[in-house]
Amino acid sequence: MRMYDLIKKKRNNEELSEEEIRFLIREYVAGNIPDYQMSAFLMAVYFQGMTEAETLAMTMEAARSGDMVDLSSIEGIKVDKHSTGGVGDKTTLIVAPMAAACGVKVAKMSGRGLGHTGGTVDKLESIPGFRTSLNREEFFAVVNKIGLSVIGQSGNLAPADKKLYALRDVTATVDSIPLIAVSIMSKKLAAGSDGILLDVKTGSGAFMKTLEDSVLLAQEMVKIGAGAGKRIMALITSMDIPLGNKIGNSLEVIEAVETLRGEGPEDLTKVCIHLAASMLYLAGKGEMEECLRLAEGTLKDGSALNCLQKMVEAQGGDASVISDPETFPKAPYMRKIIACETGYLAAMDTELCGIASSLLGAGRETKESEIDFSAGIVLHKKTGDYVEAGEVLADFYASEEKLFEEAEKCYRQALTFSEQKPEVQTLIYARVSEEKVERMDIIV
Amino acid sequence: MRMYDLIKKKRNNEELSEEEIRFLIREYVAGNIPDYQMSAFLMAVYFQGMTEAETLAMTMEAARSGDMVDLSSIEGIKVDKHSTGGVGDKTTLIVAPMAAACGVKVAKMSGRGLGHTGGTVDKLESIPGFRTSLNREEFFAVVNKIGLSVIGQSGNLAPADKKLYALRDVTATVDSIPLIAVSIMSKKLAAGSDGILLDVKTGSGAFMKTLEDSVLLAQEMVKIGAGAGKRIMALITSMDIPLGNKIGNSLEVIEAVETLRGEGPEDLTKVCIHLAASMLYLAGKGEMEECLRLAEGTLKDGSALNCLQKMVEAQGGDASVISDPETFPKAPYMRKIIACETGYLAAMDTELCGIASSLLGAGRETKESEIDFSAGIVLHKKTGDYVEAGEVLADFYASEEKLFEEAEKCYRQALTFSEQKPEVQTLIYARVSEEKVERMDIIV
Repeated sequence: MRMYDLIKKKRNNEELSEEEIRFLIREYVAGNIPDYQMSAFLMAVYFQGMTEAETLAMTMEAARSGDMVDLSSIEGIKVDKHSTGGVGDKTTLIVAPMAAACGVKVAKMSGRGLGHTGGTVDKLESIPGFRTSLNREEFFAVVNKIGLSVIGQSGNLAPADKKLYALRDVTATVDSIPLIAVSIMSKKLAAGSDGILLDVKTGSGAFMKTLEDSVLLAQEMVKIGAGAGKRIMALITSMDIPLGNKIGNSLEVIEAVETLRGEGPEDLTKVCIHLAASMLYLAGKGEMEECLRLAEGTLKDGSALNCLQKMVEAQGGDASVISDPETFPKAPYMRKIIACETGYLAAMDTELCGIASSLLGAGRETKESEIDFSAGIVLHKKTGDYVEAGEVLADFYASEEKLFEEAEKCYRQALTFSEQKPEVQTLIYARVSEEKVERMDIIV
Repeated sequence: MRMYDLIKKKRNNEELSEEEIRFLIREYVAGNIPDYQMSAFLMAVYFQGMTEAETLAMTMEAARSGDMVDLSSIEGIKVDKHSTGGVGDKTTLIVAPMAAACGVKVAKMSGRGLGHTGGTVDKLESIPGFRTSLNREEFFAVVNKIGLSVIGQSGNLAPADKKLYALRDVTATVDSIPLIAVSIMSKKLAAGSDGILLDVKTGSGAFMKTLEDSVLLAQEMVKIGAGAGKRIMALITSMDIPLGNKIGNSLEVIEAVETLRGEGPEDLTKVCIHLAASMLYLAGKGEMEECLRLAEGTLKDGSALNCLQKMVEAQGGDASVISDPETFPKAPYMRKIIACETGYLAAMDTELCGIASSLLGAGRETKESEIDFSAGIVLHKKTGDYVEAGEVLADFYASEEKLFEEAEKCYRQALTFSEQKPEVQTLIYARVSEEKVERMDIIV
C-alpha cells in the first residue's frame, strides 16, 4: 500500500477501505508517512469529505493509537459529556455532579482552554489545591466512591489525534466537519464510557458559526459513536451569547456553585438541566420527561452541589471555596465598563467577548502561557437587555491595570446596540440522535 | 505574511496578491516554508485552481528563482519550442533545423525522457560523441554560427520548479492545469527566447488525455507567455497514436533524418511543417501561408538537414550517422511482432506503446536508469491500417533477448482490432493564440 495512491483516491473522491484508513493512521503515527503527504491528504479531505465508513474507521484507529481506558472496574453505567467549546461554558462543573447525584457514573477527562474558549481543567485548577492529574487507580477510586471525577486528559489518549491536530493547525485543515468529528470522537472512544452526551455549540462564539454546520457535526459524531457501539446523543445549544453571566476561571466555578444552589442565571440553569437529563436518559434512567424532573431535583435538594463538594475534597481541593465562594482569591483590580449609549443590546460577538476575557489574563495566547485564575468578566447586560447610557455593562477583573484598555476596546467592539428590541434568543436548538434531528427551539 | 493565511486564502478560493505569491515561492525555495504547508497549498490549488494573475506571478517568481538566460548576445529573433511530451515525438530534431534554415535562431534547452515519454537530450546523445552539456559561451557560439543548438537543461534553471515538482510528484498534485502551466512556462521564461511555440499533445499517449484539457493547458500557458511579454502560440496535436513509425533513441534520430530528406512518414512530416511554420510566424517571417511554404521548402532543398548536420558537428557528434543513418550502432536482437488476427487496427493505447519501448531499454524506470540507445520499436501497422493474421505489426529491438516477452505483452495490450474501418485520425486539432482558439482539424 502506498500513501501516494491513498491521497490520489481521496482527491478523486473514491472511498478508502477500512484497511487503507488504518494503514494511513498507523503508519503516520509510526513516522513512516511524512507530514507533507498527510497534509495533502487532509486538504483533499477538506474538499471531498469522508464517508461514514471512512470516518468511523479513522476514529477507531486514532482511538486505538494510544491507551484505551478500561472503565469496567467502575460499577454502573458510565456517561461522558463533551462540549465543542464556548465562552462562559461551565456546564461540566454543573451537569457532571447533577448526573452523579442521580447515580450515573461520570469518569471524565477534560481539556484546557485555548484561544477564546475556556477549559474545564483550568477552571478546576482555580480551586486551591485541586489536583487534575490523578493516576488511573486514584481516578477510578474517586469515581467509585463519589460517583464522579474530572481530570486532565492523559498524554497517551489518542496520540494520533494529537499529531494530526498539530498538522491541521498549521495547514488550514482544521475546519473540516469529518476531521473535527474524528478528532473529538477518537478521544471520547478511548476514554471508555458507555454513553456520550455531546453539547455542540453554535453561533458567534462557537467553532461552528452556523446551525447547519453544527447539526452536520453533531450527526457525524453521533454516527461514529453509534457505529462504535456507544449510547450517544447531541444537543445543539447557543453560543451566540456567553452562557451565564461570568467568564473566567474562578468566576465560572463561583457561578457553577450558584447554579448548583438553584441561584444561577436562567439560561445556564436551563441548559444544564437539559444536558444532565440527556445524560440520565443515555444511562437508562427513564423517559426524557422523567429525566428532566430528576435533573432539576438535584438542584433543589442540594444533592448535586454535595457531589461537587465531595469531588473537590477527594481530589485535594479546598472545599471551603465551594461552600463559601466568597473566599476565592480575588483579582486586585476591577474596572466597570459603562454604557456610552442608550438602547437595546442587540448582539454580542461572543468570540470577541472570549478574547476580551483572555486579554484580561483568563486565557492562553500559546500553550505555554500561564493563566490568571481570578481574571475575567462579570456581565451585567446581555443580548436583549435595555441599557441606559451610564449604566454598567460589565465588571472586568485583572491582576494588572494595564490589561484593561485593550480588553475594553475588544469588548466594546463585540457589542451591537439598536433602538429596536432584538428577537428572542434561542437557547437550545435541537437534539440529534442516531435516528433523527428533533427541533427543540427552547428559549430562556 | 504567514504561509498559514495563504493556504487558507487559496482554500477559500480568494485570490492571492502578487506579493503573496512571490513570498510563497521565494520562502519555499529558501527553506523557510516547510513541505507540509506547501503540499497543503498545492492540494488546495488542485481544487480551486489559480487566477491568470496568480499563475503569471508564480511563473515569473519560479523563473527568477535561478539563472535567467540572457540571449541578447545572439543576433536575430530567438524562438523556443516545447512539447508536452509523447511517444515517437522527435519533432525538435526536425523543426529546430527547419526554423534555423529560415534564419530563426533556436537556442534550446531540452529535457530527458521519464516514464513512457522520450526526451530530446537522450535522443541526441545516441549520436556518438554528441555533447549536450555545453557551457554558456559554447552554446551561444554554436547558435550564432549555425543558427541552432540543443543542449540539456542547466541545473539552475528554475530551481523552484524542480523543488515544487518533486513535492507534487509524491502528493498527487501533478494533474493540475495551472501547476503544469507554471512548471513548463517557468523554465521557458528562464530560457530567454523572444518567441515560444508550444506543442500540446492530446490523447492516450499524452499527459492530457482529453482535447478539452489540452486546450485549457494551452490557453493557460499562452496567457502566461503573453503576460510575460513573449510572442507565443500553441498547436494542439494528436498523441492518440505514436508520431511517425519509429520509437526509441537512435531510431528516432534516423526517422528525423529521413523526414529532413523529405522521405519521412506523412503524419510526422505534416506536424513538423506546421510546427516549424508556427515558429517562423512567431519570428515574423510572414503570414502563416507563407511560413508553411518556407518550412516545406527546407525539406525539399535539404537546407534543414544541412543545419542539423552542422549542429551535430559543432557539438562534437559523429556527423556520418546523419549523412548515412545506416552506420548507427544496431541493437543485437530483433523480434518481429506478428498479428494473430485479421481486421482493422482500430486504436493504439499510445502510453502502453511508450511503456513497451521503455521495457525494451529505450526509456528510464527511475532517474538513475541507463538508456539503451539502440533499443525501440519500428511500427509497420498503425491505427486505421488493415492487418491480415500473420503480417508483421512491428519490429522490436533490444540488447537482451529476455526483454522481448514483457514488452510484447504490453504492446499487444495496447492494440485494439475491429472489423469496421475506424474513423480517420485527426493529426492537428487547433491553434491557440492569445486572441483565440482556431479549430484546424488537419488529418494525415
